[in-house]
Amino acid sequence: MTKAIVLSSGGLDSATTMAVAKDHGYELYSLTFDYGQKHRAELRAAEQLAHVNHAVHRLVDVTAISGFMRSALIDSDIAVPDYSGQSGIPVTYVPARNTIFLSVALGYAETLGADVIFMGCNLADYMAYPDCQADYIDAFQAMANLALKRAREGLPVLIQAPLMNLSKQDIIELGMRLKVDYSFTVSCYRSDDQGRACGRCDACTFRKEGFKKAGIADPTRYESCCGKCPLPQPLSRRQ
Amino acid sequence: MTKAIVLSSGGLDSATTMAVAKDHGYELYSLTFDYGQKHRAELRAAEQLAHVNHAVHRLVDVTAISGFMRSALIDSDIAVPDYSGQSGIPVTYVPARNTIFLSVALGYAETLGADVIFMGCNLADYMAYPDCQADYIDAFQAMANLALKRAREGLPVLIQAPLMNLSKQDIIELGMRLKVDYSFTVSCYRSDDQGRACGRCDACTFRKEGFKKAGIADPTRYESCCGKCPLPQPLSRRQ
Repeated sequence: MTKAIVLSSGGLDSATTMAVAKDHGYELYSLTFDYGQKHRAELRAAEQLAHVNHAVHRLVDVTAISGFMRSALIDSDIAVPDYSGQSGIPVTYVPARNTIFLSVALGYAETLGADVIFMGCNLADYMAYPDCQADYIDAFQAMANLALKRAREGLPVLIQAPLMNLSKQDIIELGMRLKVDYSFTVSCYRSDDQGRACGRCDACTFRKEGFKKAGIADPTRYESCCGKCPLPQPLSRRQ
Repeated sequence: MTKAIVLSSGGLDSATTMAVAKDHGYELYSLTFDYGQKHRAELRAAEQLAHVNHAVHRLVDVTAISGFMRSALIDSDIAVPDYSGQSGIPVTYVPARNTIFLSVALGYAETLGADVIFMGCNLADYMAYPDCQADYIDAFQAMANLALKRAREGLPVLIQAPLMNLSKQDIIELGMRLKVDYSFTVSCYRSDDQGRACGRCDACTFRKEGFKKAGIADPTRYESCCGKCPLPQPLSRRQ
């Protein structure tokens, strides 16, 4: 089996990307980064996502970078705003985040002997983040083809973004066909420790809209839920 | 003053690169990575190098990557070999190392408002490491121009490798003109805790040869030295 690394944030896009990689028959290696993000629940969701997909999971501690990166996803003094429909690059942008993640994945791929790195960039990201756009990924691929020993020797590591041209609706529809369980995935930029979503940030808004347009019941647990529904427990407690 | 980040390993090349950046009048930000390298003395040398150049110094902990990278510079079960004159990519190659370092530097540069990242790649590296070659740096620049918000807005962060075409002899001659004190820099891949060099690895061999060809007394402290010469102390103890 060919090995593939999947960059996983524990969100809806990662879950679908991992399902696509699994459907293609790859041996899965999930790679998640702790970069000091406020929404810690996504780390547990990523662990669970790897578990249900029988992927080897690695959580990489790069919290050191949070000491010198400005972003609403990291800094306690920059609030994550409600969705406003504004265009442009939002305050949730983290400088060079995908470049750092992909670079570490490149090194892991070379050591592991993985031929592919999957990432969940998609149309909603495309509109907001420069490091999710097709020209960026092409440029990263060109750089990666020169960076690695194995690539110089004729064996490149391929960057795959299978959701690139898909809307949230498309992604959810694809995920449903691949039997993805979205109930424990966390997209919210300000989810609480239990993974409950605010329902108002950009990530929540796009996710809600995606389920609505796809005509599929939204399994997301919101802050405003009954408070009695079973919340996912850390794997360490379940095992 | 324009801000510049200098990737600094605490070695001869970093010291010269920092001197070049200083000579150009930049406000200096030194960036050093703890990636779990065996030769820990270089971290102290980098701290001292920043200190003497009045640079703001950051040591970034990315030791997590040492858990899944294979290299003689990291793994205790892969020995750093003596210099043998063999061509090809050596076992001291660390997968994607410069890509990871430059990526973190990109994020730091965007947050800091630094316009330039300096790195010490040179002719000796060029022969051995794919991620020190001119085509790689050009490709990284092209990727960086698409990765960052500021670059998309017309303000790229420039990658500068001023030693790219220089031999060790050239670098030392340049450094002497810029009054670099090489005595506390550490190049050795297996230096001891005090920064004493083995004198036999690739890095030591190229460094020794450089001083010899430049006709300059080699200030490196070798394992075989008298044992009485004053060794540099950590700044924390000196302050």
